[in-house]
Amino acid sequence: MPGEIVELRGHIVDSLLLPKVLDEITGRGGVFELEELRIGRRRTDPSHARIRVEADDPDLLEEILTRIQEHGAELVDTEDVHLAPAPGDGVFPDRFYVTSNHPCSVRVAGRYIPVSPVRMDCAVVVDAGASTARAVRFAGVRQGDPVVVGHRGVRVRPVQRDVRRADHFEFMASETSAEKPKGVVIRAIAAAMRETRDAGQKVLLVAGPAVVHTGAVPHVVRLIEAGYVQVLFSGNALAVHDVERAWYGTSLGIDVEHGRPVEAGHQHHLHAINRVRALGGIHAAVETGALTTGLMHACVRRNVEFLLAGSVRDDGPLPDVIVDMVHAQREMGLRVEGVGFALMVATMLHSIAAGNLLPASCRIACVDINPAVVTKLADRGSFHAIGLVTDVEPFFHELLTVLEA
Amino acid sequence: MPGEIVELRGHIVDSLLLPKVLDEITGRGGVFELEELRIGRRRTDPSHARIRVEADDPDLLEEILTRIQEHGAELVDTEDVHLAPAPGDGVFPDRFYVTSNHPCSVRVAGRYIPVSPVRMDCAVVVDAGASTARAVRFAGVRQGDPVVVGHRGVRVRPVQRDVRRADHFEFMASETSAEKPKGVVIRAIAAAMRETRDAGQKVLLVAGPAVVHTGAVPHVVRLIEAGYVQVLFSGNALAVHDVERAWYGTSLGIDVEHGRPVEAGHQHHLHAINRVRALGGIHAAVETGALTTGLMHACVRRNVEFLLAGSVRDDGPLPDVIVDMVHAQREMGLRVEGVGFALMVATMLHSIAAGNLLPASCRIACVDINPAVVTKLADRGSFHAIGLVTDVEPFFHELLTVLEA
Amino acid sequence: MPGEIVELRGHIVDSLLLPKVLDEITGRGGVFELEELRIGRRRTDPSHARIRVEADDPDLLEEILTRIQEHGAELVDTEDVHLAPAPGDGVFPDRFYVTSNHPCSVRVAGRYIPVSPVRMDCAVVVDAGASTARAVRFAGVRQGDPVVVGHRGVRVRPVQRDVRRADHFEFMASETSAEKPKGVVIRAIAAAMRETRDAGQKVLLVAGPAVVHTGAVPHVVRLIEAGYVQVLFSGNALAVHDVERAWYGTSLGIDVEHGRPVEAGHQHHLHAINRVRALGGIHAAVETGALTTGLMHACVRRNVEFLLAGSVRDDGPLPDVIVDMVHAQREMGLRVEGVGFALMVATMLHSIAAGNLLPASCRIACVDINPAVVTKLADRGSFHAIGLVTDVEPFFHELLTVLEA
Amino acid sequence: MPGEIVELRGHIVDSLLLPKVLDEITGRGGVFELEELRIGRRRTDPSHARIRVEADDPDLLEEILTRIQEHGAELVDTEDVHLAPAPGDGVFPDRFYVTSNHPCSVRVAGRYIPVSPVRMDCAVVVDAGASTARAVRFAGVRQGDPVVVGHRGVRVRPVQRDVRRADHFEFMASETSAEKPKGVVIRAIAAAMRETRDAGQKVLLVAGPAVVHTGAVPHVVRLIEAGYVQVLFSGNALAVHDVERAWYGTSLGIDVEHGRPVEAGHQHHLHAINRVRALGGIHAAVETGALTTGLMHACVRRNVEFLLAGSVRDDGPLPDVIVDMVHAQREMGLRVEGVGFALMVATMLHSIAAGNLLPASCRIACVDINPAVVTKLADRGSFHAIGLVTDVEPFFHELLTVLEA
Repeated sequence: MPGEIVELRGHIVDSLLLPKVLDEITGRGGVFELEELRIGRRRTDPSHARIRVEADDPDLLEEILTRIQEHGAELVDTEDVHLAPAPGDGVFPDRFYVTSNHPCSVRVAGRYIPVSPVRMDCAVVVDAGASTARAVRFAGVRQGDPVVVGHRGVRVRPVQRDVRRADHFEFMASETSAEKPKGVVIRAIAAAMRETRDAGQKVLLVAGPAVVHTGAVPHVVRLIEAGYVQVLFSGNALAVHDVERAWYGTSLGIDVEHGRPVEAGHQHHLHAINRVRALGGIHAAVETGALTTGLMHACVRRNVEFLLAGSVRDDGPLPDVIVDMVHAQREMGLRVEGVGFALMVATMLHSIAAGNLLPASCRIACVDINPAVVTKLADRGSFHAIGLVTDVEPFFHELLTVLEA
Repeated sequence: MPGEIVELRGHIVDSLLLPKVLDEITGRGGVFELEELRIGRRRTDPSHARIRVEADDPDLLEEILTRIQEHGAELVDTEDVHLAPAPGDGVFPDRFYVTSNHPCSVRVAGRYIPVSPVRMDCAVVVDAGASTARAVRFAGVRQGDPVVVGHRGVRVRPVQRDVRRADHFEFMASETSAEKPKGVVIRAIAAAMRETRDAGQKVLLVAGPAVVHTGAVPHVVRLIEAGYVQVLFSGNALAVHDVERAWYGTSLGIDVEHGRPVEAGHQHHLHAINRVRALGGIHAAVETGALTTGLMHACVRRNVEFLLAGSVRDDGPLPDVIVDMVHAQREMGLRVEGVGFALMVATMLHSIAAGNLLPASCRIACVDINPAVVTKLADRGSFHAIGLVTDVEPFFHELLTVLEA
Repeated sequence: MPGEIVELRGHIVDSLLLPKVLDEITGRGGVFELEELRIGRRRTDPSHARIRVEADDPDLLEEILTRIQEHGAELVDTEDVHLAPAPGDGVFPDRFYVTSNHPCSVRVAGRYIPVSPVRMDCAVVVDAGASTARAVRFAGVRQGDPVVVGHRGVRVRPVQRDVRRADHFEFMASETSAEKPKGVVIRAIAAAMRETRDAGQKVLLVAGPAVVHTGAVPHVVRLIEAGYVQVLFSGNALAVHDVERAWYGTSLGIDVEHGRPVEAGHQHHLHAINRVRALGGIHAAVETGALTTGLMHACVRRNVEFLLAGSVRDDGPLPDVIVDMVHAQREMGLRVEGVGFALMVATMLHSIAAGNLLPASCRIACVDINPAVVTKLADRGSFHAIGLVTDVEPFFHELLTVLEA
Repeated sequence: MPGEIVELRGHIVDSLLLPKVLDEITGRGGVFELEELRIGRRRTDPSHARIRVEADDPDLLEEILTRIQEHGAELVDTEDVHLAPAPGDGVFPDRFYVTSNHPCSVRVAGRYIPVSPVRMDCAVVVDAGASTARAVRFAGVRQGDPVVVGHRGVRVRPVQRDVRRADHFEFMASETSAEKPKGVVIRAIAAAMRETRDAGQKVLLVAGPAVVHTGAVPHVVRLIEAGYVQVLFSGNALAVHDVERAWYGTSLGIDVEHGRPVEAGHQHHLHAINRVRALGGIHAAVETGALTTGLMHACVRRNVEFLLAGSVRDDGPLPDVIVDMVHAQREMGLRVEGVGFALMVATMLHSIAAGNLLPASCRIACVDINPAVVTKLADRGSFHAIGLVTDVEPFFHELLTVLEA
């Protein structure tokens, strides 16, 4: 009966890696023998397992090994990665290895090289000479690049629950109840933002236009001014509504202060776009003194990098919007480097786009009034994503209160 | 061709009564002649229409007249109501007239008697001797009571937009956009609550257990203490969670302050119920000094009438809960008298129950994080119901801030 | 350092009991020693763990033991349950043990007696003489009854994943993705219904009025006629809409066939209620020949036990509705005996009420178009509940197609 | 007191144009005199109103006239449109007139020229020489183009309820209740599709990836084969999932037939993309015989024009996806010409994009399981949009059943 020996290390019991691995083995019809199992007696003690995996035939064994590798199981007897040349620009070879958002390394000439960046849904291009391995998306591969195929020689180290920190954020993230007290979650988010800032890492805000509709702009401006946001990902609509509000006091033609539709209010939207286009963009609008308030103004003034990605439903768009999606993804990929915390508010589109680029170790908080959106975004199979179903404006108001306390 | 002449009065254009009446006539295949139409030139000027309605046969004419009556069309040549005796206790005669939540009168001996209370889904029992007409539910009718049948002699006066007041509340209510700025809506609610209190009318709060889960209890306690709530409708769960929080600091076993599940926390819920049962009820719990904080405590201390209606999913229930639904409805019916404003928060069940008892003229605000619930509750075909999709705790926080300003 | 030895048995790895127990111990600050761990090599092999638990002080140790007991950990050195007399009718003693929906036994005079029925949120009343132990709700306890207090001598056996069966239902239930193919889930539900019927167990249908609104009545009637439903739990609304549809062809005044509001259609609802009241109830309406079609008719004709529990929002209600909630819960408790499968469709209220009464081992499927309802209902921490987000009428249509194939 | 005379024509009462106009006048503080009002006595008779509008000052009068113009009020004494040159490429002059999705004409040299296409959120560029007027988006304007500014000389003819047809579709569209029987709505959609096909107009299908997830592909393929779809708007995800399903039998790694996650299933998604990229696109995949089944295959085989617009969350994307959003919008604008019916299913992004391009007269049906999406999409202030909250697969199944009957 064909078999292999694999090992698992770390917090493999409370991060549920061991049960998942054993379940994959038996669920697919294999058998295992726990050759060794040492389980830490305290939260912070690491565990170790040495498991012999057997299956009726080599194909099934291979399938099982592929699956459990994703949960951190590592072959004791392994070999170098297999490589194949990319058959064309933007095309990977057959059976290319697809990355997850967990750290992985590839064995080249007997040594493990870390794959960088940690990013899901990429292939791995190896430069054996320089001993580097890059995770690349389709657009980044060139004909002939040596690409990892199959799973041999690939080692995955799943992000585990950080039991030493045992902080609020991790705790909140691991709980799923929709009915946990929201004040506690907001305090956990605030703490994560402070830690991120203090650690010199970047906070990424991914935000939808409801930030403007609900009247949260003044809160977000204060967050920016207090240095809690370094990068903003959004789309055309947020910026347009923000500028419309700054210039006309309306959002989609509704008076933000009084709630009344105003004369020709529905035209403000397009007139605001037109004016920014005439000025040449948001930076120009601020620098010429035309735009003196609002969220985008604060970004320009405080050097928050903002990236506005277009969509097919955009009006305008503003000149600042990147209308080419491949270009936008590449730019977003560059800007997530150094991000330690991502706050995603009221936009499924941009949040998923950002989530695709972030490693599993990056802490994430997803806030939306629609529980289905929160569930979808926060469900990353990691201990570092937290969801909060609440309203946008009061969320920012409370977050600011906690941060300024 | 059979025909009748009807009249319409009031703000029949901007309350859309005239278009609805004409639409009903032509939509069902009738024809009309506008014998007279006087439309007010300013918002506050009343209008008047005199319409000849014709149809191919008397049945169709009758059908049309029945329908347009609901929109306020009144027969010029009318007659007394038709009455039939109730065939048994709790049973109405065939073809009994079903009331709406708009004021109506019935013609008895040539004179119009107002039907009281204004309540939907009732029959009308006439006491010709006393010249009174009561709207009664099934449980309230006794064998032999004279009940109105058919629609002859019934006059409906639909509640119209109060254009003189033209206040924020009416404006907000008539707008349907989910994206109106929430601060404006909350200010309109606050203004309505102040007006109601100043007018010596009662404010009814209908609230679900999310008031406790989300941490809104302290806000509601302050509303109560400031005299903004006179009646509370809720169920067993709100009271149990409130008492659990007061005694154990948890809500369904989750620490409200820290968000952590506590030892045996899931048992607090049942232990809290047991303790109130042992004490004999909420009033006793307050009077014996056992319960010293929370929402129910505030109600007892400030003489807010609370009515807890049972449901089939209740744990316990507390001794204060009315477990007989017919009894609960009757008690609720008595307590809505004098209510000028109803604030319905985070409970569809109790809100619909309350809504069934309130006249169309009573101002209502429905607040829920689920847009489907708000749509269902606020859609009463009246100019006096306003919906707000937001989170419970921040809503009360902001409402309190506005009211205390 | 105070310590105790506990044991765990069964599929403790893939049912995640072992990780949960170890996590509770270390998460609360205790330490453990795995004195023995034997893990089954195949899916169907049971595992066994013997764990020494230690904590800094006896109180913490006690807390930890209470918690891990719920996950099946059993003290090796144990003692008889502690009993205290109920201080009054409907009141339990302080610190009464609260049951879960997993099977438990209590040790009396050295022997373990099973507690019956398996029902959550009850206390346990022991009859030492008869060697029986009953789970009773508040309404069922009488002054002086001996009630279990604390957790000593209580043994819980959590329902584990039935790995031998490894059927579709279990598989579907353990997956959480909202995007699993619905046809597969419906086939799993159909298989569970067939197995339940073939095993001579009862199928419980818990259904809301959307069954009528969406036009699913003919499908449900065929399910009933094919013997797939033995018990129906619902409320007044389902029955009223069904009867209205049977007599007038409308549901809330909308023509079910053509979608047009009909003349005085909104009155059909109340006229239907009135007619059933006049006839004396649904059984009388069928037996007198007045009601000849529809869901309720099918229940009467096919001897499906139906239980209609009232609510405070009911119109009428029909004479068949149990308006006393304590009475309704007691009756529901009697009727769930022998239920092997519960299908809950489009009603949160009645589904939660039924769910409170069912043991964790009973298979449950929850179907609703609102994902939040499905999440809430299907999330019972068991391997036997499955959720499906879909529309009611097509669900029954497809279910019927599969069952009739 | 400054005043003007305006006229309204058509079904101004039951299309609610007259009440809206009078409400705008009085709501903004103006007064009116109904100089003439002729209301049609039957459904199909047109009405006519001649209204004198007065306001305290010329600015207010101007504001009122601008607003009521949108509801079809037309100045009796008017003048030619005012024109101003575009100050730059992609920039309109200040105060440019913003189009709605209702037909409008502009008066040039005393004659009214229709603006084409009928499209919202555009400016109007006039070619006086050729007597043409084009609605252009920002990207379409060149420096110096003469653009309409202000509202003088613009005539709007709002789409009115087509009372002659009085068909099911219009009826369904004008009703808002979420509880209308779905079968009736589906029959109305089927009828509209048949009429559109019979009239030689195009049916546009706008579809999200849930079409594949829910297993609806075979139904849509049959719709395409029966000639019911001429244009498909979607994104990368629909096509990728469809191809993944065709090649691997999975959708996002879940076996569509059996619901089980398959070996390396999550990699199928990216391997499918890679293979289409290697082949050069969907057309090439079909023509080379690599792709032989599924939705995209049917589109290629049956010459359905498909337009896949990119988004920032795309994996890949496929070579067929237009990644430049301005380009995508322009292409979509070309393809909506001749569309008589648009069926929008399970995608808010692409549906809004399409809705922005369609005239108010185009019949639209929006189908989604999320009521908030349906409300947002169907709420176009027109009598030609219908919403349906249901599940995707059963919807197409039932639609097909009706169409094939």
